[in-house]
Amino acid sequence: MPSVAVVGCGLTKFGKTDKGLIDLLAEASLKAIEDSGLENVEFDEVYVANMACGEFNGLSGIANALVGELSLEPAAAMKIENTSGSGGAAIYAGWKAIASGTSEYVLVAGGEKMSTKNSSETAEIIASLTHSEERIHGITLPSLAALSARQYMQLYGASREALAKVAVKNHEHALLNPLAQFHKKITVEDVINSPIICDPLRLYDYCPITDGAAAVILTTLENAKKLTDKPVVISGIGYATDYYSIQTRSRLDEFPAVKRAAEKAYKMAKIKPSDIQVAELHDMATILEILQSEDLGFFPKGGGWKAVLEDKTTLNGELPINTSGGLKAKGHPIGATGVAQACEIFLQLQGRCGERQVDAERGLTCNIGGYGNGVIVTIMEVAR
Amino acid sequence: MPSVAVVGCGLTKFGKTDKGLIDLLAEASLKAIEDSGLENVEFDEVYVANMACGEFNGLSGIANALVGELSLEPAAAMKIENTSGSGGAAIYAGWKAIASGTSEYVLVAGGEKMSTKNSSETAEIIASLTHSEERIHGITLPSLAALSARQYMQLYGASREALAKVAVKNHEHALLNPLAQFHKKITVEDVINSPIICDPLRLYDYCPITDGAAAVILTTLENAKKLTDKPVVISGIGYATDYYSIQTRSRLDEFPAVKRAAEKAYKMAKIKPSDIQVAELHDMATILEILQSEDLGFFPKGGGWKAVLEDKTTLNGELPINTSGGLKAKGHPIGATGVAQACEIFLQLQGRCGERQVDAERGLTCNIGGYGNGVIVTIMEVAR
Repeated sequence: MPSVAVVGCGLTKFGKTDKGLIDLLAEASLKAIEDSGLENVEFDEVYVANMACGEFNGLSGIANALVGELSLEPAAAMKIENTSGSGGAAIYAGWKAIASGTSEYVLVAGGEKMSTKNSSETAEIIASLTHSEERIHGITLPSLAALSARQYMQLYGASREALAKVAVKNHEHALLNPLAQFHKKITVEDVINSPIICDPLRLYDYCPITDGAAAVILTTLENAKKLTDKPVVISGIGYATDYYSIQTRSRLDEFPAVKRAAEKAYKMAKIKPSDIQVAELHDMATILEILQSEDLGFFPKGGGWKAVLEDKTTLNGELPINTSGGLKAKGHPIGATGVAQACEIFLQLQGRCGERQVDAERGLTCNIGGYGNGVIVTIMEVAR
Repeated sequence: MPSVAVVGCGLTKFGKTDKGLIDLLAEASLKAIEDSGLENVEFDEVYVANMACGEFNGLSGIANALVGELSLEPAAAMKIENTSGSGGAAIYAGWKAIASGTSEYVLVAGGEKMSTKNSSETAEIIASLTHSEERIHGITLPSLAALSARQYMQLYGASREALAKVAVKNHEHALLNPLAQFHKKITVEDVINSPIICDPLRLYDYCPITDGAAAVILTTLENAKKLTDKPVVISGIGYATDYYSIQTRSRLDEFPAVKRAAEKAYKMAKIKPSDIQVAELHDMATILEILQSEDLGFFPKGGGWKAVLEDKTTLNGELPINTSGGLKAKGHPIGATGVAQACEIFLQLQGRCGERQVDAERGLTCNIGGYGNGVIVTIMEVAR
């Protein structure tokens, strides 16, 4: 089975834009192709991650549209959707394509153009991912995150400040990421005093609505060695689903699918959690970054909030988390996120992150579809 | 690389129903799992083909939802979208998963629940797949098919009757398929006198709006041999895209992506077109079945319409086409179609088609996304 390497990445500016979805996808893809130096190869596959181009943009067949925009015919092309885990799912599909030996060059692009709708329409579109029998009772992702936060605080004595500090940290990181949506320093007080969304979580505990796209180029390690002196491989990847119905789950202070996906990824990469040196986690809400940092084995159960207070997850900490600014401050164009996470780890491992660069040869991404319904954990490392 | 086998299939009744999309997908999937005898294995992957569950059903994350419905956690799950080629694309993804050696048991389900919207809303949703710069001028799939029909009739002297006879034949076949949407014998005169849609094509030249789902189970040939005395393998598969913008194409009387996808599939299967003994083609409009029968190499260019008139593609002809009734009469629940085509060929090769059974050990499906934008050709045969 060939080793799968990442050999290029590209991102648009995240935020609100007048550009259309296909333009965003094409911009990120062209940057990634240029970054890889593979302008002249024939791509075998194009996977496009996106959640709701039908509802947001009145579009379908966007993978074919992207192929047309980039003149990549006759590459096979399909859209991959797994709600907010679409990007990770598309990388998983791309990884299979190369690992199978049936494809040599694969473009994985992800994007979402959300600013076409007002906030109530957008909330409705995003709520389409919750179980219909729960949705009718008003269950949404923000309210589920609040339930998790409440349970976590009660069980482990976590302070409100620790949650807020996740947002503060990620906003600080985003200050050093020119493509991030927010370039605004915030304080713990700003978070705690921001408008309440769902008790105990407030506006600044949640990621924003974002337009943007990201892309990576995958090929074999053999090819990668000809393209760069510092090839980066996907050494582990795991994908796991959990009960779709939240009421079927026994607790909300952990995500079994994160644990299962991570187990698979660690096993494939033949490493343990403490070997990870940088990570991009799915901080749709502040509490989620903390829960994932425990479910992935970085900190003991109930220890994630202390690690945040002890600055262990900042750029200078022992395990920098969300150096890009995360979903919270870099922004969360739904379909793009899993791909953007991979871009950040790729750039960190190649030492190309400028002011937010950390010292790392092995990194991890955790991308979540639904409320832990489908989770993809990817481990990348500098090939030796 | 492991050989990939189909070991089970399931279909719902096609037509209009009160059942929801997830229920339809679950029904087809459970039938397929039961058919395979694999009730007790752990599925690695669940690929769900669907075009527009957001617009038709207010749903996203349907792959996770299906996993939940079937209790297949922690199987990886994603939706695959390639408009009307979504089903073929999902089978292609499933094939890669097994062929890569990274997955052992894969469920591929496809479905669409379209009757939630009125016909003008439905037309709008389907039109989302056309190039935005062409859509504003009123270009739709039915009008493109009419342009193809006009050009084909002019270039090759094809008669209006030949086109009509495709619909007549497929309705005849559907009479023998209990799950087909239409059980209604029609005549050439019925077609020619039906309401005009886009000259020269009329209502009966087009497939209907349909609710329905289909599913297949994929595993290795090695496993298949333990499950059945007549294992069926996917011996060839090809996926090709063409110019997304129709105005960029040089002609409309052929589909280059069909030719390219077929070339790949024939090469992989090490066979030639004349080795195919039964085929399910993408007859969204009557003219398309004729064009595909030429682009796939079954008949010489300009000879497809004569083959229809000479009854070569009926159940008793030399190459039976659309024994299921095709999109025209079996129905076309968009995301289900590519999977349903695979079901029909699988059943034919296993000799399980009852009154519509033909004598075949090797079959082909051609599933088209957009107007030839993305095409998947699959060859299946009885393993020796």
